[in-house]
Amino acid sequence: MKSQIITEFGDPSVFQLSDIPKPTLLPGHVLIKVVATSVNQIDCKIRSGAVAAVSPVFPAVLQGDVAGIVDAIASDVTKFKVGDEVYGCAGGFIGTGGALAEYMLADVNLLAKKPHSLSMLQAAALPLVGITAWEALCQKANVKSGQTVLIHGGVGGVGHVAIQLAKTRGAIVYTTVLKPEDFALAKSFGADEVINAKEESVEAYVQRLTQNNGFDVVFDTVGGPNLDKSFAAAALNGVVATTAARSTHDLSIMHSKALSLHVVFMLLPIIKNKGRAAHGEIMSALTKVVDAGKLKLLIDPKQFTLATAADAHRWLESGKAQGKVVVSI
Amino acid sequence: MKSQIITEFGDPSVFQLSDIPKPTLLPGHVLIKVVATSVNQIDCKIRSGAVAAVSPVFPAVLQGDVAGIVDAIASDVTKFKVGDEVYGCAGGFIGTGGALAEYMLADVNLLAKKPHSLSMLQAAALPLVGITAWEALCQKANVKSGQTVLIHGGVGGVGHVAIQLAKTRGAIVYTTVLKPEDFALAKSFGADEVINAKEESVEAYVQRLTQNNGFDVVFDTVGGPNLDKSFAAAALNGVVATTAARSTHDLSIMHSKALSLHVVFMLLPIIKNKGRAAHGEIMSALTKVVDAGKLKLLIDPKQFTLATAADAHRWLESGKAQGKVVVSI
Repeated sequence: MKSQIITEFGDPSVFQLSDIPKPTLLPGHVLIKVVATSVNQIDCKIRSGAVAAVSPVFPAVLQGDVAGIVDAIASDVTKFKVGDEVYGCAGGFIGTGGALAEYMLADVNLLAKKPHSLSMLQAAALPLVGITAWEALCQKANVKSGQTVLIHGGVGGVGHVAIQLAKTRGAIVYTTVLKPEDFALAKSFGADEVINAKEESVEAYVQRLTQNNGFDVVFDTVGGPNLDKSFAAAALNGVVATTAARSTHDLSIMHSKALSLHVVFMLLPIIKNKGRAAHGEIMSALTKVVDAGKLKLLIDPKQFTLATAADAHRWLESGKAQGKVVVSI
Repeated sequence: MKSQIITEFGDPSVFQLSDIPKPTLLPGHVLIKVVATSVNQIDCKIRSGAVAAVSPVFPAVLQGDVAGIVDAIASDVTKFKVGDEVYGCAGGFIGTGGALAEYMLADVNLLAKKPHSLSMLQAAALPLVGITAWEALCQKANVKSGQTVLIHGGVGGVGHVAIQLAKTRGAIVYTTVLKPEDFALAKSFGADEVINAKEESVEAYVQRLTQNNGFDVVFDTVGGPNLDKSFAAAALNGVVATTAARSTHDLSIMHSKALSLHVVFMLLPIIKNKGRAAHGEIMSALTKVVDAGKLKLLIDPKQFTLATAADAHRWLESGKAQGKVVVSI
């Protein structure tokens, strides 16, 4: 089958369009005829070798997000049948194959039926960011109706999904963007208030929007010094959820406000092969939200194919993409 | 009324047995004829001036934990009537009076009916440690049946209550002690396994007791470097609750295991006068657990009175007390 493989870490030029054998079915797995995949920041980091812990064995097929058609099923699989349209984040790193190929071997625990209302390209944009936002807001922070929720990066991949999920829970949603021209876009996802984080300090917007009480829940997809800002923005007994906590912090502010911090590491069940079924369940839940018209995807308009996958990585890394970068296979 | 007051910070010799006016009733408050109080570490820190943020105005009456009889009620109070036996943690620091006096003014939101099955001395031992353990395990960590819970300091004030509350939730409870002679005592509160934390490393007991999976919930009342050990002891997606997070930590281990950290700062609703009713509700819930025979108090056998309150502080600070240090008024 045709695939993009890498045999060394590096910039996007390491991709090689190659013919490799179709993956062999394993128990509990299906073979997906890949129709689309999307590029996440983690895929670029894996490609560059920045995260050794999840590095695949060479030659490696990258990218986890997949949408496609079930082509073959293992004899013990009852969840899907050949011909089903499925989607999920099913690999692309240590111990798994990826979606930058005509066929992808995928653990059925990680998959769900694709939403009818999305194209394959749109569906491939959702899994990683959707599961991340769901784990953060619907599970760990457990956002409740009427709570105030601050979401950093409201026009980012995770952020735009997070705004919409928080709205489905009945929250009052505040979001930060970095450019005035992103205000309308963030509002279009349902944000009640949009903050220009380049122009206004945390102290100023906490005062202006919450009368200095802080937000019940803060979702931080940036990490590092931004995590301290998230602590500063949280209310007494508030909750901060983050996808990035690989840094050192004085927790005194957490103590003085009795905060909770939840780390979301979406890849963990895949890496550790533990609790994977939860991901399939989240994907099924996301399918319902999407088909109910409550979740739309922000897709960057540039078009990429398997042959131009390296360009898709370059485009995401340029920082100029607006929304998810998707690739047709 | 007779009371112990302090007019400066320092060692226990700063206490002065004095006659001061009875507190004046305020709306939403009752006047309690104090029968007993207990000494918590925070009371010693307030007395010594170690925690400026909650320091009272001089002359100050210290100690929050109280058990006694309602002596007078404000005209708007319907929750209690004169003669009711009540208990709670109702002050002893900034903006409130304390229990080291014949009468204590207390916000009814912080109080509940005393358990019938406890003496006044036993009842006075419970509020601060009981609310702390309840907030940590029953609210923030939300311990569920079948979960593994590690509680540090199983014969400490908070720890011995925490073991019993975790058992009421159906958890499998592991606890650390520092001396072999405390094993039987920790077991008597219901701990399924007791660990000698001086003799066995975190790595060793996580391997021995959880096959290296870690504990679902870790409750850390020690803080500082122990918090790092708690992160190390937690399972993937595990939860650490702590009463002490005024320190700086590399959160990478939280990231790599997708942990949650909950800070419990029990005094916060009292200090900020916000959400106090939750404390009264917890005290009511604790009354039910106690009267159902599911929670017993570890009381140090030494007897102290209002006149010897300074000795009670000395005894707690000596580190030799076994269980809660209580004072008859």
